[in-house]
Formats: sequence, C-alpha cells, structure tokens
Amino acid sequence: MSRIWCANLSLNIDFSQLMKIALTMGDPAGIGPEITQKALNQLRPWLIKQQVEITYFGDPRLVIWENVKAIECSKPPKHGVGEQAHAAPIIDAIQKAVAACVKGSHDAVVTNPINKSILYGHGFEFPGHTEFLGHLCQCGQPTVMMLTCDDLSVVPITLHVSLAQAIKDIQNNGSALIKHAIETTATALRQQGIQKPTLAISGLNPHAGEGGAMGQEEIEVIIPTIDGFKDRTDLSVIGPMPADTMFDVYNRKQYDAALAMTHDQALIPIKALAFDQAVNVTLGLPIIRTSPDHGTAYDIAGQGIARPDSLIAAIKKAVQLAKAQHK
Amino acid sequence: MSRIWCANLSLNIDFSQLMKIALTMGDPAGIGPEITQKALNQLRPWLIKQQVEITYFGDPRLVIWENVKAIECSKPPKHGVGEQAHAAPIIDAIQKAVAACVKGSHDAVVTNPINKSILYGHGFEFPGHTEFLGHLCQCGQPTVMMLTCDDLSVVPITLHVSLAQAIKDIQNNGSALIKHAIETTATALRQQGIQKPTLAISGLNPHAGEGGAMGQEEIEVIIPTIDGFKDRTDLSVIGPMPADTMFDVYNRKQYDAALAMTHDQALIPIKALAFDQAVNVTLGLPIIRTSPDHGTAYDIAGQGIARPDSLIAAIKKAVQLAKAQHK
Repeated sequence: MSRIWCANLSLNIDFSQLMKIALTMGDPAGIGPEITQKALNQLRPWLIKQQVEITYFGDPRLVIWENVKAIECSKPPKHGVGEQAHAAPIIDAIQKAVAACVKGSHDAVVTNPINKSILYGHGFEFPGHTEFLGHLCQCGQPTVMMLTCDDLSVVPITLHVSLAQAIKDIQNNGSALIKHAIETTATALRQQGIQKPTLAISGLNPHAGEGGAMGQEEIEVIIPTIDGFKDRTDLSVIGPMPADTMFDVYNRKQYDAALAMTHDQALIPIKALAFDQAVNVTLGLPIIRTSPDHGTAYDIAGQGIARPDSLIAAIKKAVQLAKAQHK
Repeated sequence: MSRIWCANLSLNIDFSQLMKIALTMGDPAGIGPEITQKALNQLRPWLIKQQVEITYFGDPRLVIWENVKAIECSKPPKHGVGEQAHAAPIIDAIQKAVAACVKGSHDAVVTNPINKSILYGHGFEFPGHTEFLGHLCQCGQPTVMMLTCDDLSVVPITLHVSLAQAIKDIQNNGSALIKHAIETTATALRQQGIQKPTLAISGLNPHAGEGGAMGQEEIEVIIPTIDGFKDRTDLSVIGPMPADTMFDVYNRKQYDAALAMTHDQALIPIKALAFDQAVNVTLGLPIIRTSPDHGTAYDIAGQGIARPDSLIAAIKKAVQLAKAQHK
C-alpha cells in the first residue's frame, strides 16, 4: 500500500481507495468552464479528504487543474456563442471519459452541459446526452433519468415528447414503460444500498383519475401494472398517488423515489424545492454518470455569475454512488 | 363610534372597523369541527388585535364559540362516516354564510371541507364547492381557483378533467380559457393592491414545446393569446414559461401569479413548497371566499391529529383580502 503525507491537510492518502472521477468539458462556449473552475476550487479540500481525484477531459486552456486529459479546441471559444467548430472536441471529451469508465481506469463520469443542436452532423445523432452515453456503453436498453436532491428523487416515465404523445405512450405502451422504469430504478437504488426500495407511482390524471371520473389510464394501465409487483420481496411499489399531493413534505417521506407519468410532474417539484442542488443521475448504464441539472446557459456565459452548486452536487453524488458500488 | 375596553388584552375595539368572517361547518363527520376548534382557540388573541369577529355557521354542539349561527344536524355525526343525513345542514350552512356576505352583514366566507358525493340528490348538483358558490352568488361566469402561499400564487387554467380532455380544451378553447383566467386573476390582484400585476403563463408541453419540437399548442394557442396582451398597461403577461423551471426559487420572484395549463402543473409546486400553509381563494365571485387546501380527511377524523394550519391561513387570508377591499 503506497501512502503520501500531505503536510497542509495532515491526511494520509491511501491510493488503493482513491476514487477517480472523469469530468467532461461540455460546451466550451457555455458556463461549463466557469462552473468547473469554481467547483474545483471549492471542492479541493473535500477531494483530498474524501480521497477523490478528478480528471478534466477538455481543453487545458479553459480550466486550471493538475489532472487534465487534453482535448483541444482548434478555435478559441467565445462566451455564449455555440459553434459547430467545437463539436469534435465536445464529442471527443465525452467518448474518452466514458471509455475511461468502461475500461475501469475511472469510477464515474460527470458531464458538463452540451447544446446538442451544434453537434448534429458531427457524429452525434441522438436526442440528447443520455442517449449518446447509452450508445457509447452499448447499453442495449433505454436508460432512465433520475433527478435527485436531499429529500426527493424523481424519475419521469415519459420525457421529451409532447404532452399528447406522452398520454398516447402511456395508453399504448404504459405497462412496459412503467415496468422498465421500476426495475431500472430499483436496481440502481439497491446498488446504492437500499435493500428493498419503495417506489411511488403517480397517476396520469388529476387526483389519479378519482376512480375513473377524470380519465381511465389509471384503471386500464397503471393500477394493473402496480398490482403486478405486489408479490415481489425485493421492492415495494405504491400508488397511483395523485401527483399534486405525492410530493408534499409528508408524502415524500413514504418512498425512495417517485416515478411520474410526465416530464413536468417529475421535474416541477424537484426544481421548485432544490433548484441549485438537484443532480441528474442516469440509471441503466453500466457506468456511473451524473450531471448538473441545467443547460449551457449561453445567456450568462463569461459574466462570472454562474453558480457551480449543481455541478458540485453532481460530483459529490458521483463519488457517493461510486463508493456505494465499491463496498 | 362605540368602543369597549378589553381588560385582558388592553385593546380598544373600534366596531366601525370590525371585520366579520363567516365560517362554514363543512362536513361534520370530517376534520372540520376539530380544525375549527383548534383554529379558533389559536386565533383568539389575533382576532381581537386585528378586530375580527368570526361567526360559525354550523351545529353549536360541534364547536365551542361565542358567535354561532346555529344550523343543527338532526343526526349526531360519527367521526369519519360521511352520511346523507348531514347533506341538508351542510348545504344550509353554505347558503346562509354566502347570503350573509352577499347582503353585506359579513365581509368574507371561509369554508370548511365538504364531501360532495354525499350532497348529490339534496339540492347540490355541482362539480364542487366553488361552482356551488358561483351559483349562489348568481355569478354568471366561471370562477377561477387560485392557490396561494407566502411566495407563490398559482391558477390552474384547466382543472378537474382528464389530462386528455385538458389538452383538447386548450386546443379547442384555450384562448378564451387563458384570457378569462388572466382577466379574472388580474382584477383580483388589483383589488388586493397590486396596480399592474405580472402574470406568468406556463407552456402545456415539456420545455414549453421547445419551438414546436414537442407539441404545437404553444405556437398555435398560447403564444398568440399572450401576444394579445402586449399593449395593455394595466397588467403584464409573460411566457409561455417551461413549467418545470417557472416555479424555481429565482423564477417565481418574477411574477405575482402563475397561470398553469393543467391541474398538476399548478398544484404540484404549491403543495410541495407549502402544504400546510396553502390557501384556496376563489376569484371571480362578488364576495371574498377562501378555504383550506385539503379535504374532509375522514381517515383521521376524531383522532385529534388534524392540523389547523391551512384553515388558520385561510382565515388570515380572508381578513387580508377583506381589509384590502375596504381601503
């Protein structure tokens, strides 16, 4: 076992326990470089104490840090101006960071925000970051997005489709979608140390349909799907709960994660409660991946006002998940 | 001007300034009597200081209070057992309390929760409490529901219909529904002293449709309706805002009320943020009406554990609105 003595912090570092996090550059024209520098500066003592090493996969001219996997932008980025010239290094950073996790040299990947519109036509043909990661990991099944903060974790069962399409998806394929979200979420929570996770399922309609008075999807799709889990001993599924009350301060103590039928049902409560602290965790990948819960924010890039809170929370969450898997 | 001296509290009471609140019994088998007694006990010093008199419209055997308009239940209520035998006094209490406000002997009505299913067939043929009040006031136009707490007020534009029907209502009649909600809310906020209210309108689809990539209702209905208000000097209408971010701690400072396309978009954030403090205010009535933001809660009736917080908030809100109108 190799050890070094850190004079400043009076800590022993055990390299066999070192957690290695791969942090991608994201879009260099957005707030990524600024929040990265702020996050790394703030986190330095915590990283040493927790025995965590972060490798920045990106342009070394953007961020001052000792562990950089250099991926250079041939054209200097301008604040707030997304450019196709940066597509190749943005994609390269994600590919190399994911490869590092797949081969085991790193324990988790944390991704800075990208703007997918500038990536199309440059080897990126996916609806978003998460689907690209699924492709890189040759995952073979849809990933599941979880947003998490201190006292709430939410999973949207339908995501980036119109509300009318989300209803059709629940009507036509809801049972498979709900089952997949339940199994993927339960597996992830078990890996995090929750032996028998409790998952709460929302209704689609107001008051979860109120016994059929306001919609049939609960009766026809959601309740039969939940009933299919009643004999399981490795997880507990409750619901359908009315979406307006399931996130209140009492009800959200009843479950480990809330699975909601629509994008807004899931994301409204967590952003209302914990805008700066919410973290996006991708479930169903063979690697650990987290990201901050915001976009490139071109409109405030380079002004020095971007807050690193969600990126810091994403890094801490990645470390927590990696440690849980190593136990 | 008549004055009395309250020895205990050393306060002068000016009867010309006295606010009179009518409080209805609601369903006597639910938590109404319990939360009423708790609220009145807790509020007594505040009522004296604020020069507020509460009249309880209900059975005098249920609540110990000095100002009771007696409406007796012929059959004693059992905790948690809703009975049609109580339909007549429940309805009578609402009618008499509303009549007292319409004729001006009272300044506002606060209603305890009812269970409408036991009222059908007894002179009550309405989807809910609010519609019954609209009928009693011969209001002539649909009322608008606002839920309000310290730092957020929300108005659902569609309410107790299936989600599929809510989408159809927005597609087919959205402009009229949105305009009516805007005008009714703005009028109410002006009466509360906000000279030029700012109203934020949500999108229907995730990310407010993202420029048509996830639904057309924003482009076809919502944006043109909002544009119709751009020359108004008596209110400001902003949006459509993505529903997942419009309620976060920064965005909710931008507006006086958020008007949301669906029941869940509106009610999720306020119940997540302020379950016990949220108050239901009915807009568009010729009288002031508030109510707690919960139901009869038969399941916990008579156990002594019901919290009066929302009823207390409803009473205080009614007083605040009545004082604003008297200015």
